Formats: sequence, C-alpha cells, structure tokens
Amino acid sequence: MRPSGRDLSEMRAVSIETDVTKHAEGSCLIRMGDTHVLCTASVEERVPPFIKGSGLGWVTAEYGMLPRSTSSRMRREATSGKQGGRTVEIQRLIGRSLRAGVDRVAMGERQITVDCDVIQADGGTRCAAITGGWVALKLAVDKLIKAGDLTSDPLISPVAAVSCGIYAGQPVLDLDYPEDSEAGVDGNFILRGDGQLIEVQMSAEGSVFSRDQMSTLMDLAEQGVSALVTAQKAAVA
Amino acid sequence: MRPSGRDLSEMRAVSIETDVTKHAEGSCLIRMGDTHVLCTASVEERVPPFIKGSGLGWVTAEYGMLPRSTSSRMRREATSGKQGGRTVEIQRLIGRSLRAGVDRVAMGERQITVDCDVIQADGGTRCAAITGGWVALKLAVDKLIKAGDLTSDPLISPVAAVSCGIYAGQPVLDLDYPEDSEAGVDGNFILRGDGQLIEVQMSAEGSVFSRDQMSTLMDLAEQGVSALVTAQKAAVA
Amino acid sequence: MRPSGRDLSEMRAVSIETDVTKHAEGSCLIRMGDTHVLCTASVEERVPPFIKGSGLGWVTAEYGMLPRSTSSRMRREATSGKQGGRTVEIQRLIGRSLRAGVDRVAMGERQITVDCDVIQADGGTRCAAITGGWVALKLAVDKLIKAGDLTSDPLISPVAAVSCGIYAGQPVLDLDYPEDSEAGVDGNFILRGDGQLIEVQMSAEGSVFSRDQMSTLMDLAEQGVSALVTAQKAAVA
Amino acid sequence: MRPSGRDLSEMRAVSIETDVTKHAEGSCLIRMGDTHVLCTASVEERVPPFIKGSGLGWVTAEYGMLPRSTSSRMRREATSGKQGGRTVEIQRLIGRSLRAGVDRVAMGERQITVDCDVIQADGGTRCAAITGGWVALKLAVDKLIKAGDLTSDPLISPVAAVSCGIYAGQPVLDLDYPEDSEAGVDGNFILRGDGQLIEVQMSAEGSVFSRDQMSTLMDLAEQGVSALVTAQKAAVA
Amino acid sequence: MRPSGRDLSEMRAVSIETDVTKHAEGSCLIRMGDTHVLCTASVEERVPPFIKGSGLGWVTAEYGMLPRSTSSRMRREATSGKQGGRTVEIQRLIGRSLRAGVDRVAMGERQITVDCDVIQADGGTRCAAITGGWVALKLAVDKLIKAGDLTSDPLISPVAAVSCGIYAGQPVLDLDYPEDSEAGVDGNFILRGDGQLIEVQMSAEGSVFSRDQMSTLMDLAEQGVSALVTAQKAAVA
Amino acid sequence: MRPSGRDLSEMRAVSIETDVTKHAEGSCLIRMGDTHVLCTASVEERVPPFIKGSGLGWVTAEYGMLPRSTSSRMRREATSGKQGGRTVEIQRLIGRSLRAGVDRVAMGERQITVDCDVIQADGGTRCAAITGGWVALKLAVDKLIKAGDLTSDPLISPVAAVSCGIYAGQPVLDLDYPEDSEAGVDGNFILRGDGQLIEVQMSAEGSVFSRDQMSTLMDLAEQGVSALVTAQKAAVA
Repeated sequence: MRPSGRDLSEMRAVSIETDVTKHAEGSCLIRMGDTHVLCTASVEERVPPFIKGSGLGWVTAEYGMLPRSTSSRMRREATSGKQGGRTVEIQRLIGRSLRAGVDRVAMGERQITVDCDVIQADGGTRCAAITGGWVALKLAVDKLIKAGDLTSDPLISPVAAVSCGIYAGQPVLDLDYPEDSEAGVDGNFILRGDGQLIEVQMSAEGSVFSRDQMSTLMDLAEQGVSALVTAQKAAVA
Repeated sequence: MRPSGRDLSEMRAVSIETDVTKHAEGSCLIRMGDTHVLCTASVEERVPPFIKGSGLGWVTAEYGMLPRSTSSRMRREATSGKQGGRTVEIQRLIGRSLRAGVDRVAMGERQITVDCDVIQADGGTRCAAITGGWVALKLAVDKLIKAGDLTSDPLISPVAAVSCGIYAGQPVLDLDYPEDSEAGVDGNFILRGDGQLIEVQMSAEGSVFSRDQMSTLMDLAEQGVSALVTAQKAAVA
Repeated sequence: MRPSGRDLSEMRAVSIETDVTKHAEGSCLIRMGDTHVLCTASVEERVPPFIKGSGLGWVTAEYGMLPRSTSSRMRREATSGKQGGRTVEIQRLIGRSLRAGVDRVAMGERQITVDCDVIQADGGTRCAAITGGWVALKLAVDKLIKAGDLTSDPLISPVAAVSCGIYAGQPVLDLDYPEDSEAGVDGNFILRGDGQLIEVQMSAEGSVFSRDQMSTLMDLAEQGVSALVTAQKAAVA
Repeated sequence: MRPSGRDLSEMRAVSIETDVTKHAEGSCLIRMGDTHVLCTASVEERVPPFIKGSGLGWVTAEYGMLPRSTSSRMRREATSGKQGGRTVEIQRLIGRSLRAGVDRVAMGERQITVDCDVIQADGGTRCAAITGGWVALKLAVDKLIKAGDLTSDPLISPVAAVSCGIYAGQPVLDLDYPEDSEAGVDGNFILRGDGQLIEVQMSAEGSVFSRDQMSTLMDLAEQGVSALVTAQKAAVA
Repeated sequence: MRPSGRDLSEMRAVSIETDVTKHAEGSCLIRMGDTHVLCTASVEERVPPFIKGSGLGWVTAEYGMLPRSTSSRMRREATSGKQGGRTVEIQRLIGRSLRAGVDRVAMGERQITVDCDVIQADGGTRCAAITGGWVALKLAVDKLIKAGDLTSDPLISPVAAVSCGIYAGQPVLDLDYPEDSEAGVDGNFILRGDGQLIEVQMSAEGSVFSRDQMSTLMDLAEQGVSALVTAQKAAVA
Repeated sequence: MRPSGRDLSEMRAVSIETDVTKHAEGSCLIRMGDTHVLCTASVEERVPPFIKGSGLGWVTAEYGMLPRSTSSRMRREATSGKQGGRTVEIQRLIGRSLRAGVDRVAMGERQITVDCDVIQADGGTRCAAITGGWVALKLAVDKLIKAGDLTSDPLISPVAAVSCGIYAGQPVLDLDYPEDSEAGVDGNFILRGDGQLIEVQMSAEGSVFSRDQMSTLMDLAEQGVSALVTAQKAAVA
C-alpha cells in the first residue's frame, strides 16, 4: 500500500558513515533511504553571552538544504537574504533536542555547533538531521575526552528522531516524500536511547486526529527510534 | 503549590471582549489572566498565488508582541529588520491551527488574515492567540454570511488551544509566565470543539518526559479546551 | 461643514486612561475620537553610547501601527524588514518633542523609551502619540521620584500636540481621517504647557498656503493644546 | 557675531552651474557657500503604480551624501543596508516640495526623479537640494517642451528653500554647519517664487521658541528665498 | 619544497564522480586533493527577463561553502543575511566561464543553473567548481539531447580552470591551502579544451610580479588544464 | 574604426584636478574623457580588528555610482538595501591594488579609506578610480608627512590602471562605453610606476582569446599606464 512497498512499520534502510570531512571535530553522512544529510560538529571554547561565566556548556544547531537537494531547484537562502521560517523552526528543534541528551555541567563552558546540511531530500530530513547530528556530536565529544579536555562523558543517552503519520488512513513509520506530501497528519518524535520523550510534534494540515491514532503513532515511533539508536551506537563504536 | 495559588487543573480567568476595533471585519481582545491579546480578522477578496484559481480559500495569521508587553522591554521586530524565529514559528502555528477548522471549499476563493498582537504577556500568548483568533475569524465569517457573500458557514468547529506542562514535578494546566519559565517540560495542545486533535507540541528544554506524563497532560488539555470553547461560543453568540 | 459635524475649532473627545499595562513603568491609552494609541514608558539605567558619561538623560520614542488599525490592512513592518519612512519620521518627531520638555541634567544618566502603538487610526496619530507619550513619561518619572531614584522632577512642562489644516477652504482644528485625506494643507503643532513652541510642521501636498492662514492655524493650535494639557494634568493627577 | 562674520540676514554666496553631467535630462551643481550639491533630473515615461492611468505626472526625489562630504567620514548608506531616518525624511521633503510647484495634469503621465547628492556639506544641504533640484527639474521640463513632448510648461512657479534659526540668541538666515550644530532652534522654509508657503519645519532640539521669534524667522526666510529665486531664474535663462 | 611534497608542476590527484544526486539533471563530486565540491546542474524551461524572447539560452552559477568545509567554522551566509563579496565574485566568475563554452543559440531559450557547494576546502575551490561545474552541465545537456529537447550539442568545448602562483619564490601549479595562504601572487586561469583563454585573473596581495613570471604561470596553467580536460572527458564518457 | 575616432593605442584625454573637497585629507576629480570619478582619501588613527596591534597600516576602498552617472538612471544602492556584486568586486579590486603600492610597516597602524564615486560614466570607471584613488591617497600621505605623523613615505610607487580589449577584432587601449559594451574580450591591467604588475583581469563574455592577443594587450596596457603615471606625478607635484 505504501508507494515504496514497505510495510506499515518498516523504516527505510539506515546507514551512518562517520568522519566524512577532515576539518570538523565530528562528522557523519546519514542516509535514511534517499534522504542524505551531512552532519558536522564544531567545538569552540566559548559560549553565547547569555551563559557566559555560568560554567555550563551549550549545544546549538544550524540546518540548510542544498539548492538541488530537492526535486525542483529551491532558491538558495543566502541569496534570499534570510533563513525561511521552516529552516528556523527545524534548526531550533535540532538544537533543543540534542541539548536534552547533554549534561551541560559536565560539558564545561564550551559550545558545540552541529551543522546539518541536506545533500539529497526524500522526506524526514529533520529527523535524519537529529539522528545524524547526535553521532557527529558524540564523535566530537569523544575527541575532547581523548584529548583530556573532558574528564567525563557529558552525553547522557543517544538522541534520535523519526517521523510517523497517517497515510491513506493507515498509521505508517518513517514517511518518505511521496507519503509526506499526501499525509494529512504527521509528526516528529524525538526520544532518548533510554526511552524518555524529548519532543512530540503532531500536526495536521487540513485534517485532524484522535487520541487513539496518536497512541498508535507513538508505538511506531518508539519502535523506530530503538532501531536508530542501535545504528547510532554501531556508528560511534 | 502554584505561584498563583491555582489548583493543578485550574485555568486562569478567561474573558473575550468582541468588536474592539472599528476597522476589522472581526476582532476581539482575549484575556487569559494577565495575558492580553488583540486579535483582528481581515478579509480580502484575493488569495495567495499558490492557490489562485483553485476555488479554495486561505486563512493565515501574523503574530507580534508590543515592545513593552513583557517585563523588560523587548526590541521592536520592525527595527531589528526581521521577525525572529520564535515569532515565525508561532504565526505559522496559528495559521495552520485555524485552517484545520475551516472548510476551504465552502470558504470560496478569498483570504482571511488573523493578526494577533500581544498587548500584555504573562505566558501562553500563542494559545490565547489561537483561541481569540478563532473568535475574530468567526465574527468576520458571520459578517460575510450576513452580507450574502457566503451561503454556508465554512467553519467546521471552534479551534482553541491551551498549554500544559510539568511544573515542580506536577502536571499543571494553563501555565503562566512564572511557571512557564521554570517548567522543564511543557506543550501546546490545539483541539477542535468536537474533541479532535489538530496539533500537539510537547517539548522539553533540558529535561525529558514519559508517555504516562504525556497522557496526563492530554487529559488536562482536553478539559481546558472544553472550557475555552464554551467561552468562545458565548463570545460570538 | 466638517464630515463629523464638528465646529471649525472643535476638537474630538479626548480621553486618557492610565496604567493600562502592568509591566511598563508608565502607560496610558489615549483616545482622540476614534484614534486610539497605547503609550508606554520604559526606564533603563543606561544611556546610548553618544552620551555615556555625560551625566545627561535621554528620552527616545518608537512608533508603530497595528496592521489592522487602518481601514484596509497594512503590511506589518516586521515582515517588510524595515520601518517605513513615515514611521521613522514620526518616531523621531515624538522623541524630539518629548525631550524639549525635559531637564536632561535633572533626569540623570538614564534612558526612558516611549513606545506609541496605534491600536485604531482615524487621523492625527502622531499628535495623539506625543500627547499620550508625555503622560506615560510623566507616570514613569513619578515612579522614579517616589522610589527615590530622582530627587527633583525633570519634567519642565507638559508637551502636547495637535494637527490643524485647511479643509474645504476653512481652517480647522484636529483633523480626523476623512479631513486629513482631503486637506491640501495641514500641519502638526507641538507646544509646551507654558505656551512655548517646540515644533511646527506645516506642509502642503499639491497646494500652498499664505502667512495669514498660517497665523490662523497657529491660533487654533494654541487653543487645542491648551485643552489637551488640561486633560494630561487630570490624567496624571 | 556669526562664526563666518556674516550679518544676521546675510546669506552665503550662491552659485548654480547648469548642465554639469551629460546623461541627465537636467542637472546643476548648486553651491551655498561650502555646501555643494549635485542635482540631476531623470525623465521616465512611466509613473508609480498608485497613479497609473490617472493622467497625472509624478515628481519624486532621492538624497544622498558622499561618505566624505562631511568633516569626518560617514558610513556609506549602501553598505549599512538601508537609508537612515534622516535621509528618508529629507528626500520625502524634497519630493513633496517640488511637487507643490508642479501642475501634475499639464505634466502628463510621466515621472521625473530628482537626485540630490551632497558633494560637500557645510549645513543647509536639504535647502540647497530643493533649490538646486528645482533648477534640474526646470531644465528637464524645458527639454521636454523643446522636443514637443510637452505643449505647456507644468511648472507653476520656482520652488526654493532656506534655513533660519536662533543662533546665540539672535535670529539668523542661512545657517552654516558651525551655526547649525549650536542652534537650539532652527527651521527650513520652503516657498514658491510667488511668495506662497509650501512647507515650514520649525524645530527645537533641547529648546523652545515663541510666536514672535517664529515671525521674525519667517521674515528672514521670505527675504532669503526671494534672492534664491533670482539666482534660479538666472541659471535657467 | 612544497608543503605537500609535490613537484612545482604537479597537480593534486583529481577525481570526478558523476550522478551523485538523484534529483539534478546533471551532477558530480569533484575532488582536487582535499578540496571537494558538489556540482549540480538544474534545467529550467525559462530564461531571465533580460533575454526573454531572444531565442538564446542562459547558463548561470551559484557558489557556497558549507560552514565547516573550512578549518575553523565559518558563519553560514544564510544567517548573515547576504552572500559575501568573495562568494558573489566567485559565482559570477563560474557563470561567465561556463557561458564561454556554450553556443547559446543552439542551447535554445532555457536556463541551466550550476550550483557548486564546497563540502571540504583545501584551496582552489573556485577552479574545482568550474571544472566540476562543466561536467554537471555536460551531463544535463546530454540528458536534454537524449530526450530530444536539443537536436545538437550546444557545448563547444570543455571549460576547466586551475590556479597557479608564486610560492616561496617559485612558480607552482594548483596551489593547496597552505600554499595559497602564503603566496603573494596567485591567479586563476580558465581555458577551453581547445586551448583558447576565457579568463585570466592574476592578483598580488602585498606583492607584485613581472611579465616573465606571468608567462611561466601561463605555461603551467595550460599544462594543468590539459590534464583536467582529460579527466572531464573520462567522467562524461 | 573606433566610435570616438581614436587610434587603436590612443587613450582618452586625462585630467586630474586635486583638492576638490575641503574635508578630505586627500582628494581629486579624475576625468578619463567623459568618465569622471571623485576620489577622496580619509585617514583614521585606527585599523580593522584583524590587524590590531600588528603595527601595520591598512588601505581600503569603497566605490559607488551616482544614480544618474549612467545613460539611463540606475537604482541607488542605498535604497536597494545592499551593494551589488559588481560594486563589491570593484571596491575589493581598488583596495587590493592600492595596497600593492604601500609599505604597510612604514605606514604605521592607521587606516586610509579611499572613496571613489562615479559622477559621470563612460566606460573604464574602475581603472579611473584606481588611478585617481592613488592620487587622493598620495595627497593624504603627504599631509601626514608634513604634519610629522609619518617620518618616511610609505608609498613605494604610483599605482595606475587601464582597460584594454578586442574591439571589432582589433586590440584597443582604454575602452569607452560604446566599445566596452561591444567588446567580447576585455581586461583591466593594474601596474605600478616601476612597471611591475599588480593585477591582470582578462575576461571574455561570450568569447575567447589567445595568448598572442593577450600579449598585445599587455603591451598596450604598459604604454597606457606609463602615460597615466606621468599625469599622476604632475597632479601631486
């Protein structure tokens, strides 16, 4: 029933290739089917003004799409003079989600910026960005630990995300673009590896949903994130 | 236990004063305790380019805060040269939520813009904006019906929103600013008058939550929205 | 002869409601007929760089119109990326006018920002903003005096403003929108309560005027400002 | 008493050199003492959208200062990303003033843009821009008449401007920069060659003035503009 | 003598991987040593306004660097609100260079946009972008030919580019970042496969050069481009 | 054969008028035929952050065109909100070129900004800006020497620039606008007075060129710059 022929609860093939760029402290290329996102983590020994002197660390994120990551060419945000509303929403979500997996005291007063750039898009780019972003973050943290700049690991638990939605009346896991553009209801579920919830964003464009449906989607999300965390752990091992 | 002395499931006093400005087709001033939002609905007999000729209507929203609606003065967005990320997120949410209550075929090819301007802020401004925005929208639609420009009511059901969160370890309904700034977990729940869900945004900044907690918050939200819908119906009667 | 039926030298009903928002140090809602402007005064214990260390205070102003304060919806300046020329002109005028009523030495090295936001427009918004802005300023100053932060009152005399113009060949006081949009000649007169002039802006769009006409308009303005000062004094009493 | 040694009612030397650039339909370099402004008039056979089809013409103006026209280098507005408030105010004034001397029906549906660029500044640049701008406008109109594109002269009367102020307690005509930066009260007076007033902008920064003082300044302004109109007529003859 | 141990006239290893993204009509990832640039070509059946109706085609280019393509993280241009001067210079150069290899009549009235995004930078990114950009362009054109949308090949000859400079007093071919940041004199040479020159940009920052040196660098450039053209032909075969 | 009737190797008449504005430390108006550029040099006793404390000086440049310097009126860059790509390219070139003639150690830690504003354009404005810019720079430096702020002259050699191109198949020197707009190949050559090359920018829009042609253009450029340096020396004598 799904355009891709997948089962309702079947995710796309996931691959996480690490250390894909030589400059970043941590990096990976995550592929969720045809959605490919390059994630890098950059460490700086300074923090934003609002936490200066607090002893706390900060994790933030930026998100972008290459102009031809999509089916028809998008305008480059640098030429339109600002980041669009969707971009801003997504990068705030990525940063907030990753911070939920970090002990900011243990991290010390430094900042890690996670850049997530979509090379090729086929639905679910923000979820892939969070999942891959955590891997880049972890690799950068491991480098700090190895160098003796950190004495304990500030990462509490992996952070991963997956989308679920109602497609053609059925609850489905990990929507690709053909599904995403048709689904009246869909959401993003960000969880930690220990099963705790970080963020739930269920949204209906031109539609509505019931609590029962929401519950079913939550079940799918827990199952999906569990598989993603396994892939993350393998990647950083 | 709550700073305001309210019970865990007690909302702030709600008042909705209608027809507060003479120019707008629909308007109201909604007060949720000390949060005051002026909502106006403006009808235009044209639609955005992407639906031109489709026969469908469009509802969109804009959101703003007066510089001294807050405890310390905020910079005016018009002088900083752009709307901030938070503003953009909120106005996209308001528009999306209101559209979920509209039959866009019945609405005909016209646009209604709902402006929500925060006069005084004390937490929960986006929820107040959605709840009051629907009242302004309804009044504008009623005017179109009365004038014979619409033959049937395109509004399917009221749309209202409330925030819930975990404050001091307890699930609470309708957070005010002192609670909102302390709560590690909070969310916005947008529902229709018929009980259907439109949007759920649960988010944890520096914290996490369980499915059980989420379920409790949903219960509170359903209860809160039900009271708001009663107030909306009274206001537009 | 006037669309409103007023006499040539008759002002609209004036009302000034004070303390309309809980956060601002001073605030009022001024109504000149159907023109409604919300004015707030915000005190900061810092001054702009160009007077740092001078011991002098600073009063500045910002002005905005809610999108649907006007007959047809205006574009929100925050979305167009900048304040328009008219806005900038008006807020510079408000700041300059209010400063003319202030002893900046007595004020001490602090800044008061007066925000004037037009809730509903029907002509004469900048004059209402100055008149109401002074009330908000006065209330904020009174609070500083009461708190012992100021030992003497730095406000020399009230500042108030009124528009006059030639409508249908006749000199009229306090133009409303229907008059304003027809008048070829109109002006804004800002005076102090002691009768001294602060600013005179007479302007003719597609028309001209004589010195005699100007003199008549000055007479009307003096009369109008005198009434406004009475209303200001009553409001802050 | 004046820094320049001029009498109270003595203007600076005026010179108007015409046809200073080969591309513009009309152009002049006006010198009011050490204030030098290059004015060009550009004719276009199209009008702004808001008067399209009305049969009326439009005159508009833009104003700029070269970065080193001033004593210390100013930031170039093109690099700061926008025109400052002062620039916007001035160019609106120039356009409005010039339009007051134009029969827009006789002008026909075309636009003339007057650019006023300050090459060297020593006070009174906006007045010099208006006075020189009218000369450029007149030369462009003469070219249209000569080419048969206009059958009658749409210029009703010359438009010229001069500043006056209270310097060291004395009313003075045509303030230069040392006077302008000291004067608590000063104003710009724009008149037509037939003696009619177009715009009066009296302003006090940190000061006030009386009606008597205003009257004296008006006398000076009438005298100054009269001399400027003579210079304009000689230039375009 | 070179940091990399290369001979003076030795280029870095070149690889060109084609069809690296599924959406673009043509794409490649070009690697010049550690400089990696993703190039995509997007075909649109419309042209910019200035050639509409001329029957001519247009090739244009955009250039960007991922924030962590460099040794320390760069600010994302989308967040700084505009493309920097260097970016604009480079993308204009890429577009101009590629157009020099195109018969715009044979191309027909359509536009091809070549996006060059630097994934990893180590000097010479603009040259890699031109060389790889031509490959993406060629693949897109081949697709148009195959689909019957073009009846003849509008690409006259390959276009490729290489940098040369004076490093430590010696003329060197294909500078990497350590050389580039030290070289007082360097340049970019864009040639066609038939040996004709398209663009020569020799520049000295804090240094100068002689005609003899320039001639030697030209020899190196011809040799380098010849090798690049061989790689391009192999890639598109 | 040339539209102007000049010989292939004949430059336009050059004139350099110095000290044309009273505020700038150095200034000139350079005329290359009908191309007129006003150049000013502004000295500041501070340097950009990136060389603070290095003891080195900095020379930078900005470039602008008056709106009606061209045949049809151009949009003012201050109103379009940013400098266009061409402007940025040109001002970077001017700054880089002038720095190549400066001993930045001898200059001391100060900055000189050279502003080049095109009053009238007829081709070759960037070359005129460099040639005139050097004169303004020299005059400012001479003033610093005279005042004892500099003990030795940091200017190594004059810097001048000329354009050459292939027009109607022939190599020509110093292209004017009619030639420039037709030439498929043209370039800018910046040299020092001692014959050393600073920058060569040969570019072909829709065309190509051979090494032989390039060599001929270099010969012309050397001849042209030699004449310009003579004019510069006369101007600053």
